[in-house]
Amino acid sequence: MTEYGKPVLLTGASGNLGRALTKALAARGWRLVLTDIAPFPDAVPEGCRFERADLNDGVTILRLAEGCGAILHFGGISVEQPFETVLGPNIRGAYHVYEAARREKARVVFASSNHAIGFHARPPEGEEGNGAKLDFDCQLRPDSFYGLSKAYTELMGRYYWDKHGVENVNIRIGSSFPEPADRRMLSTWLSYDDLCRMVAAAVTAPAVAHSVVWGASDNPASYWGRDHRDRIGWQPEDSAEPFRAKVEGRLGDPVSERYQGGGYTSAGYTREAFSPKGTFDLP
Amino acid sequence: MTEYGKPVLLTGASGNLGRALTKALAARGWRLVLTDIAPFPDAVPEGCRFERADLNDGVTILRLAEGCGAILHFGGISVEQPFETVLGPNIRGAYHVYEAARREKARVVFASSNHAIGFHARPPEGEEGNGAKLDFDCQLRPDSFYGLSKAYTELMGRYYWDKHGVENVNIRIGSSFPEPADRRMLSTWLSYDDLCRMVAAAVTAPAVAHSVVWGASDNPASYWGRDHRDRIGWQPEDSAEPFRAKVEGRLGDPVSERYQGGGYTSAGYTREAFSPKGTFDLP
Amino acid sequence: MTEYGKPVLLTGASGNLGRALTKALAARGWRLVLTDIAPFPDAVPEGCRFERADLNDGVTILRLAEGCGAILHFGGISVEQPFETVLGPNIRGAYHVYEAARREKARVVFASSNHAIGFHARPPEGEEGNGAKLDFDCQLRPDSFYGLSKAYTELMGRYYWDKHGVENVNIRIGSSFPEPADRRMLSTWLSYDDLCRMVAAAVTAPAVAHSVVWGASDNPASYWGRDHRDRIGWQPEDSAEPFRAKVEGRLGDPVSERYQGGGYTSAGYTREAFSPKGTFDLP
Amino acid sequence: MTEYGKPVLLTGASGNLGRALTKALAARGWRLVLTDIAPFPDAVPEGCRFERADLNDGVTILRLAEGCGAILHFGGISVEQPFETVLGPNIRGAYHVYEAARREKARVVFASSNHAIGFHARPPEGEEGNGAKLDFDCQLRPDSFYGLSKAYTELMGRYYWDKHGVENVNIRIGSSFPEPADRRMLSTWLSYDDLCRMVAAAVTAPAVAHSVVWGASDNPASYWGRDHRDRIGWQPEDSAEPFRAKVEGRLGDPVSERYQGGGYTSAGYTREAFSPKGTFDLP
Amino acid sequence: MTEYGKPVLLTGASGNLGRALTKALAARGWRLVLTDIAPFPDAVPEGCRFERADLNDGVTILRLAEGCGAILHFGGISVEQPFETVLGPNIRGAYHVYEAARREKARVVFASSNHAIGFHARPPEGEEGNGAKLDFDCQLRPDSFYGLSKAYTELMGRYYWDKHGVENVNIRIGSSFPEPADRRMLSTWLSYDDLCRMVAAAVTAPAVAHSVVWGASDNPASYWGRDHRDRIGWQPEDSAEPFRAKVEGRLGDPVSERYQGGGYTSAGYTREAFSPKGTFDLP
Amino acid sequence: MTEYGKPVLLTGASGNLGRALTKALAARGWRLVLTDIAPFPDAVPEGCRFERADLNDGVTILRLAEGCGAILHFGGISVEQPFETVLGPNIRGAYHVYEAARREKARVVFASSNHAIGFHARPPEGEEGNGAKLDFDCQLRPDSFYGLSKAYTELMGRYYWDKHGVENVNIRIGSSFPEPADRRMLSTWLSYDDLCRMVAAAVTAPAVAHSVVWGASDNPASYWGRDHRDRIGWQPEDSAEPFRAKVEGRLGDPVSERYQGGGYTSAGYTREAFSPKGTFDLP
Repeated sequence: MTEYGKPVLLTGASGNLGRALTKALAARGWRLVLTDIAPFPDAVPEGCRFERADLNDGVTILRLAEGCGAILHFGGISVEQPFETVLGPNIRGAYHVYEAARREKARVVFASSNHAIGFHARPPEGEEGNGAKLDFDCQLRPDSFYGLSKAYTELMGRYYWDKHGVENVNIRIGSSFPEPADRRMLSTWLSYDDLCRMVAAAVTAPAVAHSVVWGASDNPASYWGRDHRDRIGWQPEDSAEPFRAKVEGRLGDPVSERYQGGGYTSAGYTREAFSPKGTFDLP
Repeated sequence: MTEYGKPVLLTGASGNLGRALTKALAARGWRLVLTDIAPFPDAVPEGCRFERADLNDGVTILRLAEGCGAILHFGGISVEQPFETVLGPNIRGAYHVYEAARREKARVVFASSNHAIGFHARPPEGEEGNGAKLDFDCQLRPDSFYGLSKAYTELMGRYYWDKHGVENVNIRIGSSFPEPADRRMLSTWLSYDDLCRMVAAAVTAPAVAHSVVWGASDNPASYWGRDHRDRIGWQPEDSAEPFRAKVEGRLGDPVSERYQGGGYTSAGYTREAFSPKGTFDLP
Repeated sequence: MTEYGKPVLLTGASGNLGRALTKALAARGWRLVLTDIAPFPDAVPEGCRFERADLNDGVTILRLAEGCGAILHFGGISVEQPFETVLGPNIRGAYHVYEAARREKARVVFASSNHAIGFHARPPEGEEGNGAKLDFDCQLRPDSFYGLSKAYTELMGRYYWDKHGVENVNIRIGSSFPEPADRRMLSTWLSYDDLCRMVAAAVTAPAVAHSVVWGASDNPASYWGRDHRDRIGWQPEDSAEPFRAKVEGRLGDPVSERYQGGGYTSAGYTREAFSPKGTFDLP
Repeated sequence: MTEYGKPVLLTGASGNLGRALTKALAARGWRLVLTDIAPFPDAVPEGCRFERADLNDGVTILRLAEGCGAILHFGGISVEQPFETVLGPNIRGAYHVYEAARREKARVVFASSNHAIGFHARPPEGEEGNGAKLDFDCQLRPDSFYGLSKAYTELMGRYYWDKHGVENVNIRIGSSFPEPADRRMLSTWLSYDDLCRMVAAAVTAPAVAHSVVWGASDNPASYWGRDHRDRIGWQPEDSAEPFRAKVEGRLGDPVSERYQGGGYTSAGYTREAFSPKGTFDLP
Repeated sequence: MTEYGKPVLLTGASGNLGRALTKALAARGWRLVLTDIAPFPDAVPEGCRFERADLNDGVTILRLAEGCGAILHFGGISVEQPFETVLGPNIRGAYHVYEAARREKARVVFASSNHAIGFHARPPEGEEGNGAKLDFDCQLRPDSFYGLSKAYTELMGRYYWDKHGVENVNIRIGSSFPEPADRRMLSTWLSYDDLCRMVAAAVTAPAVAHSVVWGASDNPASYWGRDHRDRIGWQPEDSAEPFRAKVEGRLGDPVSERYQGGGYTSAGYTREAFSPKGTFDLP
Repeated sequence: MTEYGKPVLLTGASGNLGRALTKALAARGWRLVLTDIAPFPDAVPEGCRFERADLNDGVTILRLAEGCGAILHFGGISVEQPFETVLGPNIRGAYHVYEAARREKARVVFASSNHAIGFHARPPEGEEGNGAKLDFDCQLRPDSFYGLSKAYTELMGRYYWDKHGVENVNIRIGSSFPEPADRRMLSTWLSYDDLCRMVAAAVTAPAVAHSVVWGASDNPASYWGRDHRDRIGWQPEDSAEPFRAKVEGRLGDPVSERYQGGGYTSAGYTREAFSPKGTFDLP
């Protein structure tokens, strides 16, 4: 859909995923406007420019987005932090990104996270294929302040689509690292290559409305089922499975092994200890 | 569930619903800790006390909640306002309320809103009874920054239940006024009496986990179906229907008549005007 | 120049000049977007709407300006106040207004002030006509923090014209009140009618670049000479002279009688008392 | 004028110009109070002291200035940055510096910049000597938010002189680097030695009122004409001309070559692209 | 000590004590600079002027104090409030007042409070005269966040005297109202007349260093003994005793009756309830 | 008193004293919750965890303290800085620490400082043993903004003990470094080992109420006398005396040699220079 020739704004450009995207998309000839609160650590590719900015500074974010056909929103706090630390860059920042997109009639591709739904139980191992997988339209069940900010931003995308027709693709990223690091990532791993192809597809697809796509490679052990990948015409090409032997023995604590969000769910977990009513759960 | 004898904290005590709740619950002998950023305009009932506080001031909110068995969270911005105006009292305020509840092992009863799901289409008139009603576990589709803050607070309740066992009842209030004021309120009206009975039920029910209850009286034209009212043992007793003749002719603009959120959905609505893709919608 | 049919944003709508403009321009059939940090005290004219906003909230100001063909910037602190009080609404506010104008390719009509040049000496009385008048391209000589903010905003207009082609008309308002109140206003008075006609002319003129117009009626005793009134096709129609008998005896202190800015120049004036070098002045 | 024996406050001491001034002035036996928001990277010369401070903290700035006979204001943001980044240190900071000077009856020497007038066209090459040069009393035409802050601070100096008799010298620095780096600097270069001699002259001159001096060495290709250098008794001794062969070929883009501010004027320049009225210019 | 003819700055001018002082001191011919964050509700007496200011705005406070020979610091939050509400006006404000005093070599007369020492036990009734009274150099024992801010400001006065020779008189005001309102005020009452005479004495005394004076009228039941009243040459003339019959029966709760601070000590008091070690107390 | 098995919160963990305490207390098997605004530079000992937090963020501080039996408050600004820099971490931070302690019924061990009483004169050398020593209940006489914040925090401890039964031990640390560095430290030095033993004693003592202990080793030249060390059952084991030869010749300026606070008292000292009344001192 994005009118060709338009530049694309990338927030969070100085992070690991931002750097990988910069490299991959610039190599395709995209003109990127890169921004981050931290300096860009690499050489800025030809045809791209970098400007340092704070996601809290809305007027500046709106200006950076001018003329852009899409915004790849990978900026903000990217791990669990105190609520106050998350609030500015992730909640206020989301608003600034969507206002920018509305002004530009630009599409948003948002680095959402499995932590927006992290408190769903994992499907029984080996049963993932039998209808136990989680579909995109499941209830949001954030597992952290970070996850709450991701869920909030997805809802902001919903709102801007419903009210203003701003299209957006929300990638619920599992674990995007050079390679899987523990057993859970056999389910959640997303290779950098698959990520970059997905982002490119999300930008160039003809129409996406408000879409949700699971951000995982073609992992046989994936927890996740239906989503809008057909809308953007993307299929993963990599798989975590070849790394099984290396990481299979790396398990977390019992709580983190029960829920999809892993260690984010068990960090500070007190439900069972504190609440005798913990055995009563929602259907 | 609330251990008897414990006081109950009420935020937003100086607002219309807060005042109605104060009157009704104090009459039942509840000891209320009343708070608001504005002075309390009525006489403080015996057994209750009022302390002025800002929902942005977390340490003070936590202190007000000390020893309380439940928090009735009716405070914050209660209509659509600019994002920055909503952010502090509603988003940060929600965090403070839930931290307080976690500390006290108190239950939260939250004045959520139909505007958290306002962009769902209304059921065809006359068809509400035939499976076209919206159930509590529908997708969140906020219609405003205000609605986004309500959706966010519901998710925060979900999170505090999942991680910390903090019970919470989220009342998606339709239109709570002395009486219905337009045709839409034939579906969405919630009488003050039904509201007060619902809040009392939500506090005294033995176990509620994370619950969602539609905040409407027994209106034949209601848009809303299944919810957790059985968990709290509440049924509405009033109905908007007797007011039909008086308000039936009061319709809104076409957009507001299409969606459940009414005027909040059409305020600033630009999807169709701006986006030729407006005809493409999510299933 | 303003494309016809476009609405016009008016900041400071709830002030005296804002209310006069609202009345006069709405009567011409203009569709006004009115805004102020204070509520609008009158009935909002048909075809107009009012939204409360803080000039510090840039993203909201940008949004209010959407689709507008012109911004009449009459908002902010309108008298001398401590620097910190002036900074937000007047300095930051000016930036937000100009960013909005750039985004909309809208023209700005700015309520500048004689206090941006208030430290120029008055021409000798009776000599105003003989080349002693001050021309628009005189040096800026602000007489207060308020005047500094006005001068700054004029320069911001210069910058946005030079860099971005944002047209702007800066009205250096003398004294705009229902009628002259002292002898100085025989020179500086601007009738509400002349003001409203000038603003209308400034909006509808075909091209204005960066213009400066003295905001005074056709006063024989005016201090001010050449400006860009021809660009906007405006001439004053009222005059302070008929009020001479009533106010001629109302003089200020010696310092305020010496300088164009009147009482703003003598408030806190310490040059002569503190500095023996006060007799040395710039040519 | 400065009473001898009084110390001199230097803001921005840790920057390149601040360090050069510290070295040169301490060598003359001046007692300097050095301050910056960043640590001072060199050894603090004997008779001097360094205190870290934020220009936003007015009470601290006023205290640092106590007993000083002059303030060399070289602090603040020194390149183009987003408006919000510039606002605190440069606009609020200017106020704090001038309040300090008023309190101390100290003289201010301000590192203004050619970017306060950067949108004046360059004189035709080779014609600089023929009346085409720009005089100190030209219109302010800032080319950036940075330049706007410099123009604002000059006006604040004007105001504090007019109202309070605070003397100030505003050096409109061209390009102060170890040596010229491109063709434009053949006109704008100011050697460190010339800068340091000028600052010393500005402090020790008997009376300066509100003065403006072009901050360029004795460059044959200079754009700049009349100023107040005679008041401070300074003449440049260095020249950019010997570097001509080395840098003559280094040209900027067409916009930056047209205006005095160079690259600051073309950064983000959109007048011609956006505005068909761009051909209409002020006389 | 205050050089005669110098004006005197009064903060908190719009409060009850501020208004009483304004009236009394203006009647003595003092030239007062009045300030408050709220408008001054009375006519400004001749020879005085009022400027609205926030105690948080240090540079403005310093400016208001210019040329003043004394600062009567009666501003800030004057009852118990949440910590965050007290912090700005009372803690930061104290710093601004003392910096102003240091700059002006002005004397500070501070409205301290018995709540700075409120947790001292009351002397046994009838035994006040027998050595059971509290002397000025007792330990500080604040009874509230308000009281802590008063104690802090006394210490700031101690510091500015020790380091900078700023003289200050700290009046530990008991209860300054038109007349006593309960039994405790038979001990703590300070008539407006006694207050005004004390303030006048504190300003005009030849030398005061850092002094503490109990702010109570000549009440037989006073809790308080030695202080520095001789330094300022003041003796109370009024007494609470004539009001005994009217108020003797008005007692507070047991905790408030035990401590000097009265109701401030019992508000939120939890020592005995929470701490079994409450019986262990400091000698 | 602290119930055994409870973890202990340590603020300022990344500072020199914090690191020494971490090492020593973890070696005793204590479970420490470490926090600081800066990252922890060492390996986190087993049984401990580190979380980065800002003392300004009250809700986070309260959360870190959950379940802790004691709070060792060593965080905040630890040297003299401008008032505004000290205000947040030290004044607001103290409130957050004490609110946390009240909530947890935890004991506070506070790193107070000799700078809270630094303006007391040193006892005549050689006379320290003859009644000239300073006792714990001396007047507070802070010597810096830093010292004021320490005094304020001691008073906050007094208040929380008096009102809420929160026990606290205030260690007025002299000079805690690996070894004494100048002559003054022969009196004020506190070895790391003595510090760690004192902190451990303060936590484990059965009852401490509000206590003050001089933080110095067993130095013959100590300035300090009576305190509450018996309450916590601590005696110093090290002494500065063996270092006498090495440091005896290292004296400060005359002012710093006169007062206990040393260099903090002479920094910016102006009493004698500015105030002819400087010879008048309090008894």
